[in-house]
Amino acid sequence: MRISELSKEAGVSIPTIKFYLREGVLAPGRPTAPNQADYSEEHLRRLRLIRSLTEVGGLTLRQVRSVLEAMDDERRPLHELLGVAHHALGPPPDDGPTPPEMARARADVDRFLSDLGWRVSAEAPARMALAQALGTLRRMGRDVEASVFEPHARVADRLAAQEVGTLDPSAPRAETVEAAVLGTVVFEAALVALRRLAQEHHSAIRLSRRPQPAPEAAGGSPS
Amino acid sequence: MRISELSKEAGVSIPTIKFYLREGVLAPGRPTAPNQADYSEEHLRRLRLIRSLTEVGGLTLRQVRSVLEAMDDERRPLHELLGVAHHALGPPPDDGPTPPEMARARADVDRFLSDLGWRVSAEAPARMALAQALGTLRRMGRDVEASVFEPHARVADRLAAQEVGTLDPSAPRAETVEAAVLGTVVFEAALVALRRLAQEHHSAIRLSRRPQPAPEAAGGSPS
Repeated sequence: MRISELSKEAGVSIPTIKFYLREGVLAPGRPTAPNQADYSEEHLRRLRLIRSLTEVGGLTLRQVRSVLEAMDDERRPLHELLGVAHHALGPPPDDGPTPPEMARARADVDRFLSDLGWRVSAEAPARMALAQALGTLRRMGRDVEASVFEPHARVADRLAAQEVGTLDPSAPRAETVEAAVLGTVVFEAALVALRRLAQEHHSAIRLSRRPQPAPEAAGGSPS
Repeated sequence: MRISELSKEAGVSIPTIKFYLREGVLAPGRPTAPNQADYSEEHLRRLRLIRSLTEVGGLTLRQVRSVLEAMDDERRPLHELLGVAHHALGPPPDDGPTPPEMARARADVDRFLSDLGWRVSAEAPARMALAQALGTLRRMGRDVEASVFEPHARVADRLAAQEVGTLDPSAPRAETVEAAVLGTVVFEAALVALRRLAQEHHSAIRLSRRPQPAPEAAGGSPS
């Protein structure tokens, strides 16, 4: 198909497609005339994937490129791929010095994960993200251990088992890879959205039947 | 305390504190001399909260301001507050026209949430985020209904009930509010990190015992 048709089918503007071609995240089409090229279904599929990663996952072009490179590197064992995709999703390694309380939080998180028996690369950026969450709770004055995340870990474990269970390791590599990457990004966005909606629901239930007016409300503001 | 002490205690540089003061997200200190002010424990606490929201939650200053304004608006009923905080967390409303497939996804999501019996504002931005996730799956060729998110909804419901359950509606308003906002942002970051770690773990287990080498691997790359 021509670039105009590709644009229409994917819902991506022609200038954006040309930008992706220049940036190398989309392979060039088959040249048919000096200023024309033919694009395949694979181009369309790739373009839709890029759009999904940027729109739903909020990935930058740099992150999209790392994810696509990992997907396309066929020497990379499939089971490493999710790790690589997560690596690309960040957070980026911190360049500053690690303050002592963050080093402690990181050590606590590492022990927590090892107690859970999870097989996770030592460089997984999500380790540091979790340590940051723990460090933040402590900085805000909560005297908590990493086990405060246990309910979330249990839930994550169950979900991940189910999600990874839908992947078919005997399907063509490209398909499995795309499903894995898409699943990570799209269902993550869905989970975050659903947790916020559920919180709104539960706070409406719980906090609207407040036992008695708070002191500041008791003063009575004019209507 | 002086600004230098505030900076040291909160782990936020003096120029950044001055920036927050100029931007109005931090209240001015009590003036003690023409070019000096005294800051309280409350300033320290607020500064730590701002740092948590930006560092762990990845919020922009604009988002921080909306969250703080909602927190400080005492006329706002407590049970509305999480909704307002979520509003500030985005995604921002889309300004472009809604393509028909997104309108369909949104209607499907609304029906799904109403079937769940969740009390959620019609304007909750997470509704649109969930619709985007559904629309993306469909665009990538998956023939799915909103019920594909059912496992995630069940999990989100259970977590949220537990999280909101730890809030004490009879505690001073400022405390409940801070705990609610912090809980939303910090445990969201933790949940996302844990899901990625769990996925890496399960994909290591499942995909590393691939039944047989893929065609492209069978060729054998040198060492």
